[in-house]
Amino acid sequence: MSSSDRKVAVMPDKSKKHGMLVQHFYGKSRVRMTKLSRRPDRHELLELSVDINLEGKFEDTFITGDNSLVVATDSMKNTVYVLGAKHDFDSIEDFAKILSAHFLQQYLHVEGANISITEDLWQRIDLDGKPHQHAFFGAGAEKRSVTLKETRQSIAIESGIDNLRVVKTTNSAFLGFIRDSYTTLPDAKDRIFGTTVSARWLHDGENSDFNTCYHTARQAVLEIFATHASLSVQQTLHEIAQTTLERCPSIKSITLTMPNQHRIPFNLEPFGLENRNEIFITTDEPYGLISASIART
Amino acid sequence: MSSSDRKVAVMPDKSKKHGMLVQHFYGKSRVRMTKLSRRPDRHELLELSVDINLEGKFEDTFITGDNSLVVATDSMKNTVYVLGAKHDFDSIEDFAKILSAHFLQQYLHVEGANISITEDLWQRIDLDGKPHQHAFFGAGAEKRSVTLKETRQSIAIESGIDNLRVVKTTNSAFLGFIRDSYTTLPDAKDRIFGTTVSARWLHDGENSDFNTCYHTARQAVLEIFATHASLSVQQTLHEIAQTTLERCPSIKSITLTMPNQHRIPFNLEPFGLENRNEIFITTDEPYGLISASIART
Amino acid sequence: MSSSDRKVAVMPDKSKKHGMLVQHFYGKSRVRMTKLSRRPDRHELLELSVDINLEGKFEDTFITGDNSLVVATDSMKNTVYVLGAKHDFDSIEDFAKILSAHFLQQYLHVEGANISITEDLWQRIDLDGKPHQHAFFGAGAEKRSVTLKETRQSIAIESGIDNLRVVKTTNSAFLGFIRDSYTTLPDAKDRIFGTTVSARWLHDGENSDFNTCYHTARQAVLEIFATHASLSVQQTLHEIAQTTLERCPSIKSITLTMPNQHRIPFNLEPFGLENRNEIFITTDEPYGLISASIART
Amino acid sequence: MSSSDRKVAVMPDKSKKHGMLVQHFYGKSRVRMTKLSRRPDRHELLELSVDINLEGKFEDTFITGDNSLVVATDSMKNTVYVLGAKHDFDSIEDFAKILSAHFLQQYLHVEGANISITEDLWQRIDLDGKPHQHAFFGAGAEKRSVTLKETRQSIAIESGIDNLRVVKTTNSAFLGFIRDSYTTLPDAKDRIFGTTVSARWLHDGENSDFNTCYHTARQAVLEIFATHASLSVQQTLHEIAQTTLERCPSIKSITLTMPNQHRIPFNLEPFGLENRNEIFITTDEPYGLISASIART
Repeated sequence: MSSSDRKVAVMPDKSKKHGMLVQHFYGKSRVRMTKLSRRPDRHELLELSVDINLEGKFEDTFITGDNSLVVATDSMKNTVYVLGAKHDFDSIEDFAKILSAHFLQQYLHVEGANISITEDLWQRIDLDGKPHQHAFFGAGAEKRSVTLKETRQSIAIESGIDNLRVVKTTNSAFLGFIRDSYTTLPDAKDRIFGTTVSARWLHDGENSDFNTCYHTARQAVLEIFATHASLSVQQTLHEIAQTTLERCPSIKSITLTMPNQHRIPFNLEPFGLENRNEIFITTDEPYGLISASIART
Repeated sequence: MSSSDRKVAVMPDKSKKHGMLVQHFYGKSRVRMTKLSRRPDRHELLELSVDINLEGKFEDTFITGDNSLVVATDSMKNTVYVLGAKHDFDSIEDFAKILSAHFLQQYLHVEGANISITEDLWQRIDLDGKPHQHAFFGAGAEKRSVTLKETRQSIAIESGIDNLRVVKTTNSAFLGFIRDSYTTLPDAKDRIFGTTVSARWLHDGENSDFNTCYHTARQAVLEIFATHASLSVQQTLHEIAQTTLERCPSIKSITLTMPNQHRIPFNLEPFGLENRNEIFITTDEPYGLISASIART
Repeated sequence: MSSSDRKVAVMPDKSKKHGMLVQHFYGKSRVRMTKLSRRPDRHELLELSVDINLEGKFEDTFITGDNSLVVATDSMKNTVYVLGAKHDFDSIEDFAKILSAHFLQQYLHVEGANISITEDLWQRIDLDGKPHQHAFFGAGAEKRSVTLKETRQSIAIESGIDNLRVVKTTNSAFLGFIRDSYTTLPDAKDRIFGTTVSARWLHDGENSDFNTCYHTARQAVLEIFATHASLSVQQTLHEIAQTTLERCPSIKSITLTMPNQHRIPFNLEPFGLENRNEIFITTDEPYGLISASIART
Repeated sequence: MSSSDRKVAVMPDKSKKHGMLVQHFYGKSRVRMTKLSRRPDRHELLELSVDINLEGKFEDTFITGDNSLVVATDSMKNTVYVLGAKHDFDSIEDFAKILSAHFLQQYLHVEGANISITEDLWQRIDLDGKPHQHAFFGAGAEKRSVTLKETRQSIAIESGIDNLRVVKTTNSAFLGFIRDSYTTLPDAKDRIFGTTVSARWLHDGENSDFNTCYHTARQAVLEIFATHASLSVQQTLHEIAQTTLERCPSIKSITLTMPNQHRIPFNLEPFGLENRNEIFITTDEPYGLISASIART
């Protein structure tokens, strides 16, 4: 039954029809699960926040309040824990695949399943040079993430890094930009470059080695950020993208978003001092924002 | 010069070319401006946060670090204050139009300007039943917003409300949904319905009466939320959308997003008490999430 | 049994005793309860977040891990809902009294109960000029709060307002402050004065009319903020405190904390324009912070 | 001139005197400074947020609006950058001492200076096993902090760690607590123990080796948390405190605050599965809260 067929069928009250439903989804967000794997030699800890959205033949509940085709979002929540218990998996990408496959198989009127998972990163506490078997500390605001969109025809898996904060104190310039009546910024030959990297890479197919790819991409971000002789945030972003594509053959494209989190030289002249590029006001806002997608050629 | 011409010209190092730039934008975010209009009888206060993104012929800075076509994001920031000072405007939509027109006129290599503005809502302090001439209190987390996308061919203005928190304590049910092996939620004939409405409406053209439209839409949200006999969040959302389209003729479509912020009945049985639908655990997560776009027919 | 007696008894390993427990408390925080009162003509909605801390003879669990005197914090959580269900109350102060009395009566080794409650403020939706019977919208970030400290000898109830954001666009100056080699701020004859008021008032006894007192204090804050000819944030704060003490006879003292949330004039000179005290940079940080306690004489 | 002398002198309007100023302070908060030290072999990066509060003879500005003794908070902000530029220091404790000494020396009517500094922790990016000379990544939400209170008679320096998130997946129990009509929590022989440690230690004098002390204390927190056979959060907290006192001889006392951030076993029985202590709901609220101060004997 097509969406337009349906519309005719369910329209109960013509006088109220000022518009038609052109897009809709629903689901459960922030389902947080701790999964503990008690291995003989060590414990593995996975802490996830899962968002599920379904698309499909759900017009009735919008138009008439008939819920007979509605999967309760509470049931979606249950499903996360039940499938989390039933299955072994070693990446959030694999768990996202398990979840989306479930919803498409279990409910024939579901046309698309969108699964987003964010992973809290825990690091083993180091004691006497050895990683502890079951004690961890929080690795910070940085997260690993995946967004999977599956329909009955296709699947797209985009993995990523959120909130990777980095700063370099030299080897970054910004010169030769447009100078007109709206410009007051001086050229900077040597500036601090601070950003919080968000990276998203689209896998070529659904069977990448997700974990290797993640670690390779993360290392590329750190290495290129540290070593690139930067003429602009844009250029460094582009170089990171090129290097990631080079090192991760199973990635089709990558999107990087990098705010320019300014450190502004404090004017010490009124106090009879010279600022030798050493004292800065740390700011959160306003901030520059640079984003680009680079696709494999 | 076409984008593909450009690419050939600047490719300096073939060995590094693993991908091509398929999408990019950059700009300044969180430019916060207070604009005060000192009228004879009262002061008008406008507090805005502006995000600007430009699209256009900016490939060089990505690929070679040549910034000669780059409008510094610091200059974008200056532009907000300069145009904010030069122009009178009485809505964030009008200011967004002034800003986007500026960037397209001033810089011929800019192909698209995207302006998002969020307005802090201040309410006059009431003294002896009269609104004060120059003293205000914060109306809360709720914001008014606009997102404008302008190219050399088109303009799209989407206005909205963010973070409008509402709750109703009866006249909401959720019954008859799919009951299978993943379901534990009981039917609810009378539940608390709490949500935080986000609404975005697309204007038909660029000369709507933005302020009337905003106030009409906001009142429709509140009225329908309060009075609708709700069989599902979806149905109430749909009814709000239909009513807004009915009352605001210049709107082409509306997108509503409404989380279901659950109040869970606390189980008083272990304590020898009955919960007569009066005592609940207030929760933030997990939450349901319902979203739909309704377009005028 | 005195605390020092106890220490001798439980000290299991002298070599580990490098310090002694000089202060300790424990409890449950962020217990969130929605209480709905279904009145014939309207519903009353109360949404609270409760923090409970107990002090008393809890040294054993610290020193030996013997939990036999420990009230589980999970039981404290249960207690909030159970007492919330059993009792009628019309202010958070009264609920705090019910809770603290319970812990002191139920557990003889508890020496002090500290209860903090924060109330989300909901306002009835207005339809056709009438407040709705069961539909509400969120009144913002502002909260009502109480902190109650009860021991077997005494009780102190401090009520308050958190996060009341206000701004006035004139009738505020800041002149004649110390001008030395660290000063760059010019005198301001007419500045914007924006703040977020936090107020805490200590009741004289435990049987104040808490609701009247709250509404009177809140109105005093708004009225004096709006009308005071301010020579400094300090002076306005002091005037608010004096007026609150004047109007609320059952208050013993009041503490006000008011950040100075600066709006900084944007320098339009580089752009050939004059800033007639109308265009400002809205900032969150850094901010001034002024705090004082005023006690009834 | 004593405070009571002053009060008589400035009281301009007896009718308004309903209370007297019993406590007051003011200052500047969130002064954020990046200090870069360009060493021959590497760059040192320090990113701080400084809060300054002064106490002293500031009654006039409260009572009459006379600002002649007021150090503008804007000047305090300038002072942070000026003294940050003038002085070398290798800990936030030393910078706090420089700042407080300045305010007490520069302004004779200042009676107390309270300086709080929070340090963002940056870690060098590791390339080929070597820490990079000038590129860093953010070590997370964890901060290092100091609070210094100096008067003309005394100085107290309290250093600390904020937001150190840790979790252990076994070796933690909670048994034998009070079981009464408010109790539903079962005994737990083996539970996940997750917390976010806040530690504050008071130095004995003002010339501790602050950096060694910080690293020793932080390692003690991690080591004891990981290895302690925990019978309660309280007991682990106490053991951490004892060990820190043992290893840091220059510490007089330590205060630890540790929320109990619950992972709640998900009930898999309705789904025909057994939860072998492996699948949990991760929660933020409500949470237990344990705090204690342990002083050297």
